[in-house]
Amino acid sequence: MPVDDATLHRMAQKLRRHSLESTAEAGSGHPTSCMSCADIMSVLFFDEMRFDPSDPSGADADVFVLSKGHAAPILWAALKEAGAIQDDLLSLRRFDSPLEGHPTPRCPWVRVATGSLGQGLSAAAGMAWARKLDGTPARVYALLGDGEAAEGSVWEAAQFASFNRLDNVCAVLDVNRLGQSGPTMYQHDTAVYEARFRGFGWDVAVVDGHDVAALRRAFAKARGTSGRPFAIVAKTLKGKGVSFVEDKDGWHGKPVKKGEELQKAVAELGDTSVTIPVEARRYPPVAARATGDLTLKPSYALGQEVATREAYGTALAKLARTSPAVVAIDGDTKNSTFSEKLKEAAPRQFAEGYIAEQNMVGAALGMATEGLIPFASTFACFLTRAYDFIRMAAYSRPRHLVLCGSHAGVSIGEDGPSQMALEDLAMMRAITGSTILYPSDAVSAERIVEAAARTPGLVYIRTSRPKTPVLYANEEYFPVGQSKTLRASAKDAVTVVGAGVTLHEALKAHEALAKAGIAVRVIDLYSVKPVDVETLRKAATETKAIVTVEDHSVCGGLGEAVMAAVGNRAPVVLLGVSTVPRSGKPAELMRHHGIDAEAIVAAVKTLA
Amino acid sequence: MPVDDATLHRMAQKLRRHSLESTAEAGSGHPTSCMSCADIMSVLFFDEMRFDPSDPSGADADVFVLSKGHAAPILWAALKEAGAIQDDLLSLRRFDSPLEGHPTPRCPWVRVATGSLGQGLSAAAGMAWARKLDGTPARVYALLGDGEAAEGSVWEAAQFASFNRLDNVCAVLDVNRLGQSGPTMYQHDTAVYEARFRGFGWDVAVVDGHDVAALRRAFAKARGTSGRPFAIVAKTLKGKGVSFVEDKDGWHGKPVKKGEELQKAVAELGDTSVTIPVEARRYPPVAARATGDLTLKPSYALGQEVATREAYGTALAKLARTSPAVVAIDGDTKNSTFSEKLKEAAPRQFAEGYIAEQNMVGAALGMATEGLIPFASTFACFLTRAYDFIRMAAYSRPRHLVLCGSHAGVSIGEDGPSQMALEDLAMMRAITGSTILYPSDAVSAERIVEAAARTPGLVYIRTSRPKTPVLYANEEYFPVGQSKTLRASAKDAVTVVGAGVTLHEALKAHEALAKAGIAVRVIDLYSVKPVDVETLRKAATETKAIVTVEDHSVCGGLGEAVMAAVGNRAPVVLLGVSTVPRSGKPAELMRHHGIDAEAIVAAVKTLA
Repeated sequence: MPVDDATLHRMAQKLRRHSLESTAEAGSGHPTSCMSCADIMSVLFFDEMRFDPSDPSGADADVFVLSKGHAAPILWAALKEAGAIQDDLLSLRRFDSPLEGHPTPRCPWVRVATGSLGQGLSAAAGMAWARKLDGTPARVYALLGDGEAAEGSVWEAAQFASFNRLDNVCAVLDVNRLGQSGPTMYQHDTAVYEARFRGFGWDVAVVDGHDVAALRRAFAKARGTSGRPFAIVAKTLKGKGVSFVEDKDGWHGKPVKKGEELQKAVAELGDTSVTIPVEARRYPPVAARATGDLTLKPSYALGQEVATREAYGTALAKLARTSPAVVAIDGDTKNSTFSEKLKEAAPRQFAEGYIAEQNMVGAALGMATEGLIPFASTFACFLTRAYDFIRMAAYSRPRHLVLCGSHAGVSIGEDGPSQMALEDLAMMRAITGSTILYPSDAVSAERIVEAAARTPGLVYIRTSRPKTPVLYANEEYFPVGQSKTLRASAKDAVTVVGAGVTLHEALKAHEALAKAGIAVRVIDLYSVKPVDVETLRKAATETKAIVTVEDHSVCGGLGEAVMAAVGNRAPVVLLGVSTVPRSGKPAELMRHHGIDAEAIVAAVKTLA
Repeated sequence: MPVDDATLHRMAQKLRRHSLESTAEAGSGHPTSCMSCADIMSVLFFDEMRFDPSDPSGADADVFVLSKGHAAPILWAALKEAGAIQDDLLSLRRFDSPLEGHPTPRCPWVRVATGSLGQGLSAAAGMAWARKLDGTPARVYALLGDGEAAEGSVWEAAQFASFNRLDNVCAVLDVNRLGQSGPTMYQHDTAVYEARFRGFGWDVAVVDGHDVAALRRAFAKARGTSGRPFAIVAKTLKGKGVSFVEDKDGWHGKPVKKGEELQKAVAELGDTSVTIPVEARRYPPVAARATGDLTLKPSYALGQEVATREAYGTALAKLARTSPAVVAIDGDTKNSTFSEKLKEAAPRQFAEGYIAEQNMVGAALGMATEGLIPFASTFACFLTRAYDFIRMAAYSRPRHLVLCGSHAGVSIGEDGPSQMALEDLAMMRAITGSTILYPSDAVSAERIVEAAARTPGLVYIRTSRPKTPVLYANEEYFPVGQSKTLRASAKDAVTVVGAGVTLHEALKAHEALAKAGIAVRVIDLYSVKPVDVETLRKAATETKAIVTVEDHSVCGGLGEAVMAAVGNRAPVVLLGVSTVPRSGKPAELMRHHGIDAEAIVAAVKTLA
């Protein structure tokens, strides 16, 4: 039996009360940001959304993304009232509580961590895209704040959703007029938001966000709209329901005080004695997606010249043919990253992300929450664009999410510094729990794609632009956390550690040094994180010194990873890029920045 | 005497010819992306813009930003034809040429490096904002590609420009229909772009981008528009003018072949024998801006509890009062970063960037090109959002550009991981030529603000949320590249290196260890980059080991900077965050992640 408007309104008041009480108890948090969206949350959780409170997986059910993550207390309150969680709401923000200050997957109902604003709609769009792929009518709801609508990424997500006709996604914009440090740009001018959503291809309803009946009508309209996504622009008041905070500046991120102030606030909410049982409601189940076969059989000849980026594409295409779970998204660089090979092999499993890298990563994360194994690729330098999304993706603990950056380093040549990733290893290493793989030839590239598809969490693959000769037999494996020692002898004076293009320089240096009577060990550090501590320490003990060489900034990359692994067991000399690069021929640039065979030879000679 | 349309058209054909020839000679580049905007460039450089070809400073003149940086060859061609540069256009993309593959300031007419798309309009808006501050009517032009309009940052810039009524900025969108790997999202549907610009508060003209007369009319309309910025949406053909590349897919980033193919292409362009003398045209000069006094006089008592973020704000406000060059922009966090203190002291010198960090950094870079000393601040974690902009800002070699990230690390407490910067030191260290400063108390914070305002290039200041006691006398100075040894004795067994909140933990550990009879040296590494190699190596020699402790990822930050400095002179033990953090009390989290005094004591005891 459908619940009546008055009951939903009372539930909204109860959610406001929970938000006030839990933040007051915690002594921090954002109650007023919860209160503006209380009616929206009440209607969503107790009327609109079809889900099973006993199953946080979201299978065959509508799912919800709280993009305005600072309103976490009201999400916890809604989940508690719906019977979906049993946690004590008053444990909010405590170290031992899953009810964190902003949503994280420590609460099983949270699919993507939020709290860095402007990210939720990308994730929602990715989920909606995956659901279209699966053929389920189950929907995705995202609640955004008006302040975060200033983030360009929101509009990247909006265009992705409309371009892909994702009529299964519904965004609600909580226009509460007040940001953190003052009024928002457009305050209560809902026409601005309406025009923007329409300009980005959405259908829109503008409603009073505290009018339960109006919200229900808008959601019904959204559900009935096909061919395009739907936005509900809801005019609301921050702190709605409590006179001394309602629509008042200076109350962002500020709880009311326990005791008299809280009592006064709660009293203004009136009678909040209401419960609304949430029955399990699901959509007809769709066929479960098989992961399929993730085994690759590389097929190259030793010495064959193949760019690792091309082998990446070849591997992706093969995987997509045998695994319906493998999908790819790219930032209009598919002919350079070679993700286009997947598109050719399995067009439905490919999403074109166009030049919008933040949304690309966010959408891929959303796809991951639907059980897919997404590979998101662009030039490695442009992944810097999505660093905040990457950080948040890691906090979202995806089952699988693979990022691939191609055209790494100065070895790309003539295009110049804007296209040369020199920071990607550093930025990916700093991410807690990330895995970083860096192939040097076509065989390792394919094996690394295979390993990435099987590795839990966030995996980064770094590929190179130039063609490099195949070094490995097709049967070779590249387990995460190991390395390959390509040259070794009992007389090794120095160890040279490289990966990608610099490994080939190391091999050339090995040859030149051998002629000069100096034996060097050469290690392919294809797993930059986790790093092969054991092999590196052994080399540090058995040889006088280690030279690392990387087509990357000398700060934070492969060299420092090696240094951190070997400690003071041996001197480590870092060769890497330390000055601003420019256009030029690849070989010219590698020489200029001291990361070619000649530079390795010179470094080794000072140490041997 | 105004030039006629036919002559401008012929100049466009000549610019096309240059673009074809220089890229053919280079063997790489994007001629077709140049050819679509040749008429626009011809009209801009030979009719619309008022500038002095002998003065690249742009003072009292219109300036131009090529946001679609891959069209660099036509920029070089236009500058050459205008008499502004003397370089050989056929040196394009050569190591020894300033005419790089994408624009960099190695050509003095380039104010901001471009080539990572979607960044030029933010820079242009920042310049326009600075020009409004100065009261000059001189204008700013930005040329964008349609593909890059997919970047959300373009719309962040668009809203910043309209919100600030920057009617001195004019954007031209070159809608050539084709991206890198296929058609753009909206191909020739110029109505989409028109609706978006209007939705973001701009006036718009839609024109045939190959119709010189129409372009001139549109620019005249733009010049006559007041109160809002103006966008010219120009429908064009990629490769326009040469039948076998015009409007054809597969010709992105591909030169025609030297020899027969090039000859055929050039022949289709017809008679290109034209020169248009560009006379120096300037606006009435405005009063030169004085840098003023950048000296600070901190005024704190030893032991006084002040957050470094608050001292940052105090210092900014003081600077702004004595220096009209000092400006600030913030991402709706001014009450947390304390940049609001500058706003209160000198409201005209403050720009509210709202929640749009990419544009914040891009606009600050634009302001920097106008001779300002911009300080851009937000939570340190949200600077990850702008990493690509930060990278490109470094390549733009600004005279001064200061970024400040507050609320660094797990010590922020209850808000949880989304708000905790754990990657900022790593990402800033990887940037070539960056300076990183990290104050631990109010005095060092003020001195560091002072140093930052005087330091050329990109400077990053990391501030903390919690209050910390003042450690230094007001007279203390904090030169870039040095450190402070706070505790030292002849008997020091181990050296502890910290900065920010962890320095205070190191001091507590010093005290606890002293009671246990273990003397430790304590170093405040306030200059994380450049790092004080000499002092660190001395400590490595004089003590048995070094313990670094940082409220940051253990990868790529302060610890690895120390390790890289001391090499194998001593073992270095890195304390830092290596697991996913969560909500909790600051002390609880610092204990959990092993970066508090207790953890330092334990680490020292294993080494002493």
